[in-house]
Amino acid sequence: MTTAEAGGAKPAAKDPWELPDVSGLVVGVLGGTGDQGRGLAYRLARAGHRVVIGSRSADRAEAAAAELGEGVEGADNAGCARASDVVIVAVPWEGHAATLTALADDLAGKLVVDCVNPLGFDKKGAYAIVPEEGSAAEQAAALLPRSRVTAAFHHLSAVLLQDPAVERIDTDVMVLGEDRADCAVVQALAGRIPGMRGVFAGRLRNAHQVEALVANLISVNRRYKAHAGVRLTDV
Amino acid sequence: MTTAEAGGAKPAAKDPWELPDVSGLVVGVLGGTGDQGRGLAYRLARAGHRVVIGSRSADRAEAAAAELGEGVEGADNAGCARASDVVIVAVPWEGHAATLTALADDLAGKLVVDCVNPLGFDKKGAYAIVPEEGSAAEQAAALLPRSRVTAAFHHLSAVLLQDPAVERIDTDVMVLGEDRADCAVVQALAGRIPGMRGVFAGRLRNAHQVEALVANLISVNRRYKAHAGVRLTDV
Repeated sequence: MTTAEAGGAKPAAKDPWELPDVSGLVVGVLGGTGDQGRGLAYRLARAGHRVVIGSRSADRAEAAAAELGEGVEGADNAGCARASDVVIVAVPWEGHAATLTALADDLAGKLVVDCVNPLGFDKKGAYAIVPEEGSAAEQAAALLPRSRVTAAFHHLSAVLLQDPAVERIDTDVMVLGEDRADCAVVQALAGRIPGMRGVFAGRLRNAHQVEALVANLISVNRRYKAHAGVRLTDV
Repeated sequence: MTTAEAGGAKPAAKDPWELPDVSGLVVGVLGGTGDQGRGLAYRLARAGHRVVIGSRSADRAEAAAAELGEGVEGADNAGCARASDVVIVAVPWEGHAATLTALADDLAGKLVVDCVNPLGFDKKGAYAIVPEEGSAAEQAAALLPRSRVTAAFHHLSAVLLQDPAVERIDTDVMVLGEDRADCAVVQALAGRIPGMRGVFAGRLRNAHQVEALVANLISVNRRYKAHAGVRLTDV
């Protein structure tokens, strides 16, 4: 304690909680008609963002948007990408590569947030799939060389996200990426949802285990009848 | 709320928090002279367990045990394994396979708790190593067919564990394994340390991401000057 209080000659590190104002950003959600996508769209719209959900079919996206309320808009995937500053990728893992490949032009220059968890299921439950690129996020980075790719929002319960009666979701969002400023935007975006903190948690090469941890949370949910999330302690 | 209160015809599931009394178990810690091993040995001894730390050299183990106090004993690895009911494997990943292969007889019939995190380090920080068997825990299970192998205690800060001034460590211990009773023992053991909960978090095939998550916690610690751990929310 004495040592810490005495201080040293080291320059002060940048405050990791100093995050940009992201309140004006338009957020797109690809796969916005799925459970995770709908939940994120709902929460971010409720936090005041303009949110556009994307789907292969603009009609389906518009119908889902109307159901969500909170001013959420719908568009086809390309329209969603083009209209947005930040684009959350919440498509099923099976369609991940094909969807992103088709959208590479529309996503050029955008901040992309991959929240896809590559999982398989069998009678023993969920298990992690290891993409050739290492993780869904690294696959996105490989397929979208002109985008700024980050990974986040993996561990949120779609049930809690979608439940209008839930006011706060007390959980942390682990944010991964190569660029500090990009990660800070995503951290700040997570922090717009009451109860959530965005915490920087490493580079994309360490995304696989964050994605795969959802298999464990599924086991936890089953055993404890919970909608488990993750908090990082001492942070 | 009304629905939940009304109840249903379903039989009550076994309470997942009903755990056995493990206070009489002798705990061995292989690799007990390393930081993680010392920390776990110290905490479990402080919680009232007889604890034996193991090392390749009995002399080194005894010296480390004397330093830890709290009645901790030291022995060579084989002696540590034979003396203990539950054996925590806290050896460096580099020595994991060789150590366990040599101790297969001594560990026969024992409850083994693997807490090893296979990590590599380079100038960009820590990254996950993927063992041929999938994870350190699955490697242990493959090398110790006559032992009951579980995985736990991955995300604890060795600094906090070893600091006598720290009274409580508010964190969850994710426990993985194939057998419910074995996992319950390990969960109960984690619960002996003030502030900790042992939470069942899946089968051994989902151990890799739990082990590898330490790479992310290292990034968190660096950014936030923390000793990060994990809490599961809504559990």
